[in-house]
Amino acid sequence: MSLPSDAARMRIEILNTGTELLLGNTLNTHGAWFGRELFMLGLRITRQTTVPDGDAIREALEEAISRADAVIVTGGLGPTSDDLTREITAEVLGVDLITDEAALRPVTEFFALRDKPMVEANKKQAMTLVGADVLPNPNGTAPGIYSPPRLNGRSNCAVFLLPGPPRELYPMFHQEVAPRLRALSGLETVNSALELKFTGIGESDFHEGIDAQLAAVPALEYGYCAHIGEVDLRLIGSPEALAIGRSIALEKFERFLISDDGSSMEKTVVRLLQENGMTITTAESCTGGLIAHRITNVPGASEVFTHGFVTYGNEAKIGVIGVSAEAIASHGAVSETVAKEMAEGALHRSGAGISVSVTGIAGPGGGSEGKPVGTAWVAVACQEGATEAFKVFHPRNRKDFKLAVSQSALEAVRRRLKAIGEAKRIT
Amino acid sequence: MSLPSDAARMRIEILNTGTELLLGNTLNTHGAWFGRELFMLGLRITRQTTVPDGDAIREALEEAISRADAVIVTGGLGPTSDDLTREITAEVLGVDLITDEAALRPVTEFFALRDKPMVEANKKQAMTLVGADVLPNPNGTAPGIYSPPRLNGRSNCAVFLLPGPPRELYPMFHQEVAPRLRALSGLETVNSALELKFTGIGESDFHEGIDAQLAAVPALEYGYCAHIGEVDLRLIGSPEALAIGRSIALEKFERFLISDDGSSMEKTVVRLLQENGMTITTAESCTGGLIAHRITNVPGASEVFTHGFVTYGNEAKIGVIGVSAEAIASHGAVSETVAKEMAEGALHRSGAGISVSVTGIAGPGGGSEGKPVGTAWVAVACQEGATEAFKVFHPRNRKDFKLAVSQSALEAVRRRLKAIGEAKRIT
Repeated sequence: MSLPSDAARMRIEILNTGTELLLGNTLNTHGAWFGRELFMLGLRITRQTTVPDGDAIREALEEAISRADAVIVTGGLGPTSDDLTREITAEVLGVDLITDEAALRPVTEFFALRDKPMVEANKKQAMTLVGADVLPNPNGTAPGIYSPPRLNGRSNCAVFLLPGPPRELYPMFHQEVAPRLRALSGLETVNSALELKFTGIGESDFHEGIDAQLAAVPALEYGYCAHIGEVDLRLIGSPEALAIGRSIALEKFERFLISDDGSSMEKTVVRLLQENGMTITTAESCTGGLIAHRITNVPGASEVFTHGFVTYGNEAKIGVIGVSAEAIASHGAVSETVAKEMAEGALHRSGAGISVSVTGIAGPGGGSEGKPVGTAWVAVACQEGATEAFKVFHPRNRKDFKLAVSQSALEAVRRRLKAIGEAKRIT
Repeated sequence: MSLPSDAARMRIEILNTGTELLLGNTLNTHGAWFGRELFMLGLRITRQTTVPDGDAIREALEEAISRADAVIVTGGLGPTSDDLTREITAEVLGVDLITDEAALRPVTEFFALRDKPMVEANKKQAMTLVGADVLPNPNGTAPGIYSPPRLNGRSNCAVFLLPGPPRELYPMFHQEVAPRLRALSGLETVNSALELKFTGIGESDFHEGIDAQLAAVPALEYGYCAHIGEVDLRLIGSPEALAIGRSIALEKFERFLISDDGSSMEKTVVRLLQENGMTITTAESCTGGLIAHRITNVPGASEVFTHGFVTYGNEAKIGVIGVSAEAIASHGAVSETVAKEMAEGALHRSGAGISVSVTGIAGPGGGSEGKPVGTAWVAVACQEGATEAFKVFHPRNRKDFKLAVSQSALEAVRRRLKAIGEAKRIT
């Protein structure tokens, strides 16, 4: 397999319609979502445009069709008078609209099932373009429409009309749009994809460290995505290309790897706990419950997590998990000693196999010269082995600080669990 | 004051440049952000376009300038060879680029301060268009550029070139762009804005309940923004118009009001705790720490929050906050009795003035016929007065369920605190 240069040259435009997208009430997540999905197909968005509902669609659609090989339009397929995407597309392409009886049936059923009256406007949703495919919508009343290139000689561009709501759009894209785009692009082989998540290094480390090597792998596409405390490397290509790309990345950065299957940090930690047959507890000061929240976002977390302590005040550290008042008085709440006592106290109190604690200064207030805002201590304790503690410094706004500290803490847990698992396998 | 129709007719386009925005690596949050900011100025985005870095900017910029009264371009002001916004804009407008000595100084200082060498490419960042204003960037090395309309007869469109990173873009917009847009729009009076947050009702309740009345208020602009467990009503206009809009909304929906100053639910709860001189504690099962996390996102939370309990397993409910094993055995962990015992136990254990507990079934597993996935019990206990409990049903995915339940719980706390505050004022 090789990535056909045709595919790379295929011009695909996204046209999002919706006044709410331009008023700032709704975040347009379609752009990023389509970008990722097309990247998986070896394709690229060449332009994305957002216009309000109504007549503004006409000009934007005419321009897009004149430039692109395929245009994907989202929104404006509803029953209201503002929903004009179907009508305008028919005009622009110079074809007629007809009622599709097969498309009318699910609309009728939708209202019958809910015992709601179907008004005339809803019938509009079963209108399609002559010569176009109707794309079923199992999650809503408005089917999509696919108008192939050269439908009528006026346009050599493929046009997809898709519903706006993600829960209708995403499944329709996977079932109806992706196969057609693949056929149009001439890509015969489906690419595979791999997402490697890393922590503790920045995007620039990848640029400097492995960019040139990755770029030299034939038929491999790659991209980075940086979050707080995390960089994701996405690889797309043939299985052989993926294997080479993966080994280039791991040779240099394996010790920073969170997962090689796209699993989040918390999902990875939950999996390692399950594999080791261990439970975890948390003793959180500055993260205020975020670490427990992240762990419990993972389905099945209840198997490995039973107790979490948010010991925000000193009285909670002392009273609930048994930190010594003396340690706080001599070292301060943000200190190695207190972090260790928190982790050990929570471990003891809960009977868990491993515990993690954090104590730090989120700001905006509370910083001092020796312990500026952004400072935190993290400790990890286990039923066996010494308690480990380390200091981190994440001088960010309050929410980003919490996220960054929670990531440092979960990474420390991940490393400890990995070491425990490896030791078990050796013995 | 009246909303000038000129302003409403002013055509403003946003042109976002950046290959990363089209690859799906970075969510384009600029569109929604600009939408909100312009709405505050009484203005509207008429089109938003995203193109990759490099030459694709030219075509998009030429088109935008031919259509709009003002074009705001983001990105492409950096030092790399891909950063071509300045050069292309100069070409399109037909003006020369010159080095701005005042703009070069902060770039030089930026590198001197960090003890990094300044390469030739960085000097490019101090290039500006002849006749344009250089917009200072206190948060980065690339200043913005404002090219007024009729700069050279070729274009009657104002062009703003702004850096892409939000921490550089947002302050520059407020300090440099907003005043110029206001002048261009001919708006002499600055609009005021008001955000009312509601919970417990949906967007459609507003449409049906007050839309017609709001639309009839002269010089009032309004919009809704729906989140999980929350609808925000934004009002923009003269102080008189805002007062009328506010009273229309409150007459109908006051009992659902979270705040009338844009404060989040958690910020409102922290403020009410401070006003009542009370502390709060949390006993969370199904929300897994999210309520504590939300409270501790508010600066100053440490004044009102010291203890949080994440009692995810029954052993934690029993062992840490004293829920009776009998209650769990007879009623199940997801029950009114257990929710009440959790709230009372946490209150007793922490010595807080008020406590809130949640216990529910997040799914995907764990549901039963009588207690399907999405069911949760919430309880609120105080040092004085009876413990209240109620059942909620939020059949959503795991993360949205947690958010919806945390919102129901915080709303219950808000109502109780409000009642306590009112009782105090009466006596």
